[in-house]
Amino acid sequence: MNTGALNAKSKSHCPKWTLPVANELVRVQETIESVTNSSVEIATQISSYVLAAGGKRIRPCLVLLSVGACGGEVNAERVIRMAAAAELIHTASLLHDDVIDSAGARRGVCTANALWGNTLSVLGGDFLLSKAFYLLGDLVESEIISLLSNAAVAMTESELLQTSCENNIDSWRSEYWHIIRGKTASLMSACCESGAILSQASKDAQLALRNYGDSLGLAFQITDDLLDIIGNPAQTGKQVGSDLVNGKFTLPVLIASTRDSFPFCFLTGEKISPELAQQIAKFVVECGAAEEAKRIAEKIAQHACQSLAVLEDSTYRQALELLATSVVVREF
Amino acid sequence: MNTGALNAKSKSHCPKWTLPVANELVRVQETIESVTNSSVEIATQISSYVLAAGGKRIRPCLVLLSVGACGGEVNAERVIRMAAAAELIHTASLLHDDVIDSAGARRGVCTANALWGNTLSVLGGDFLLSKAFYLLGDLVESEIISLLSNAAVAMTESELLQTSCENNIDSWRSEYWHIIRGKTASLMSACCESGAILSQASKDAQLALRNYGDSLGLAFQITDDLLDIIGNPAQTGKQVGSDLVNGKFTLPVLIASTRDSFPFCFLTGEKISPELAQQIAKFVVECGAAEEAKRIAEKIAQHACQSLAVLEDSTYRQALELLATSVVVREF
Repeated sequence: MNTGALNAKSKSHCPKWTLPVANELVRVQETIESVTNSSVEIATQISSYVLAAGGKRIRPCLVLLSVGACGGEVNAERVIRMAAAAELIHTASLLHDDVIDSAGARRGVCTANALWGNTLSVLGGDFLLSKAFYLLGDLVESEIISLLSNAAVAMTESELLQTSCENNIDSWRSEYWHIIRGKTASLMSACCESGAILSQASKDAQLALRNYGDSLGLAFQITDDLLDIIGNPAQTGKQVGSDLVNGKFTLPVLIASTRDSFPFCFLTGEKISPELAQQIAKFVVECGAAEEAKRIAEKIAQHACQSLAVLEDSTYRQALELLATSVVVREF
Repeated sequence: MNTGALNAKSKSHCPKWTLPVANELVRVQETIESVTNSSVEIATQISSYVLAAGGKRIRPCLVLLSVGACGGEVNAERVIRMAAAAELIHTASLLHDDVIDSAGARRGVCTANALWGNTLSVLGGDFLLSKAFYLLGDLVESEIISLLSNAAVAMTESELLQTSCENNIDSWRSEYWHIIRGKTASLMSACCESGAILSQASKDAQLALRNYGDSLGLAFQITDDLLDIIGNPAQTGKQVGSDLVNGKFTLPVLIASTRDSFPFCFLTGEKISPELAQQIAKFVVECGAAEEAKRIAEKIAQHACQSLAVLEDSTYRQALELLATSVVVREF
C-alpha cells in the first residue's frame, strides 16, 4: 500500500484536530486492515465494507491524542493497536445497532435482503469485537482490558435500557443521562483513560482524561440528538424527528415537554407517527428548547476542556480542546 | 444462596465426568450469576434466562479438569473466573446463533415476537461476550486473552463460512472440517490449553491439552451432526434432517453422497424440503454412512484420550477421558 499517498489524502480531508496524529492514524488504518483480513472471504469483505467508509475515527484519535497529551510515545506499536481496537469496538456496535434499528424500522416484515443483512451484521459485529480483544490481549496493562470490556458492557446495557424505555417519556426522563453516558461517553472515556495509562501518566492525569472523555461523549451525544431535531436531512441522512418515531425522547424534547405551552400528550407505549414527530420537532425549535439543549452541550464541552487543565500545554492537548469545541458545532 | 443444597443437587444430576470438579462448578455458577447481575434489569433477566437452563457446562469443566490434570490449583479464584468466562463466550454464541437460525427458519416474515427476540438476543450476546472479556481481563497470563479471543474469532468465521456454503454440497465437502473445527473445537481446545497455562504446565502438557480439546470438539460436533440424522426428535428437540433443510451438508450426508447408489442430486442454491430431508436421512442410515460417521467420531475421541498420555494419571485425567468417550455415545 502507498501509505504516503493515503497519508497526504487523509491530511487534506481530515479535521484539524487529527493533524498531530495524522501519521499514526494511517498506521491505525493499516493495523485494522491487517487484523480483519480473514481466511474466510466474507469476514474480510464485511470488515472492509464497514471500515472503509472511514468515519471520523474519533476514538482512535482520542487514544493517540491522550497518549501525546500525557507525554507518551504516540507511535508505539501498542498505542497503535489500542487505537485500532477502540475503532473495532465502535464499529462492532454500529453493526449490531443496524440489526436492532432495522428491526424496528421494518415494522414486522423482513425482506430477504434485510435478513441476509441481519446475519452478516450480527456475525460481522462479533468478528470485529473479538478481533478488538485479540489486539488488546497483547497489552501488558491488564487494567485496559477491564476498562474497554466495561465500556463494551455499558454500551450494550445502554441499548437494552433504550429498548425498555421505548415510547415511555417518563422512563426517558429518568434514564436519559444514563443512556447517553453508556451509549457514547463510556467508550470515549475509556479511550482517553487508556491513553493516559499507556503513557504511565499520574493518577491525576488519568482522572483528567477520563473526565474529559466522559464530558466529550455527553456533549457529542446531545448534539447528535439535537441534529435529529434541527439537522438537515440531506446532511444527517435521517428524517427530522426519527428518534421520536423510534420511541426515543431525547434532551431537546424532554426540555420542551416541561414548557407550559407544550401541546402534545404521550401515552406510554403509543407510537409516534413521522408527521407528529415533525410537528413536535417544530415546537421544540420554536419554544427555544433546542437552543437550550445546545447551550447545555456547549457547557459540557467547556467542562471537557477544563478537565485538561492539569496537563501541560501541547499540540495534543490543544487538539483535544479543539475536538471538544468542534463536536457541538458540527452539522452531521 | 444455599450452595450446599445446589451442590448436592448438581452432584446427583450431573454426569460422572463432572464429579472431580463439582464444588468448583458451583462457584463457577455463582461467578456467572454475580458478573451478569446488571443495574439494567433486562440485562440481568436475559442472562438469567439463558444461563439458568444450565446446560452441560462442558467448557467450564474442560478448564477445571485441565487445570487439575496438570496438577494446578483447581479452586483458585482465577481458574473459576476463566471457567465462567468460557461458559459466557459459549452462551453468547448460542444467543447470536438464534438470531441467525430464526432468520432462516421464518422465511422472510418476522413476527413482532421474533423481532423482539432478535434485539434481545443480539444485545444479550454482546453483554455476555463483553462480560467474558471483563473476567479474563484480571488474568496475568495475557496469552489466554489471545487464545480465547482467537477462539471467538474462529467461531464467528465458521458461522460466516457456513452462511456462504449454504445449499452448496461441493463447498461443504471442501469446508466441513474447517467449519466444525471453528464452530466447536476452537473454544474447547482454548479452554483446555488455558487450563494448562493457568497451571504453569510444560509446553508438552499445553500441546497435549490443546490437541485433546481439538479432537474432543470435532468428535462432539460430528456426533451433533449425526444426531440430526439418527436422533429421536423428542430428545434432540429438532426434526430429523433439519440441518439439510437449513442448507447444511454434514459428514454423514457427505459420506452417503459418495456411494454409487446415492439417488439424490443437489443443485447449488436449491433449498431442501423437510420431506426430502427425511428421505435423505433414511438413505444415510440404510447405506451405512451414519454408522461410518459414528466410527470416525469414535476414532477421533480415542485420539483425544491418547493425547493425554503425556500427563500423569489422576482423577482429573480420567474424567477427561470419560468425557471424550461419553460425547460420542450421547443421545441428545
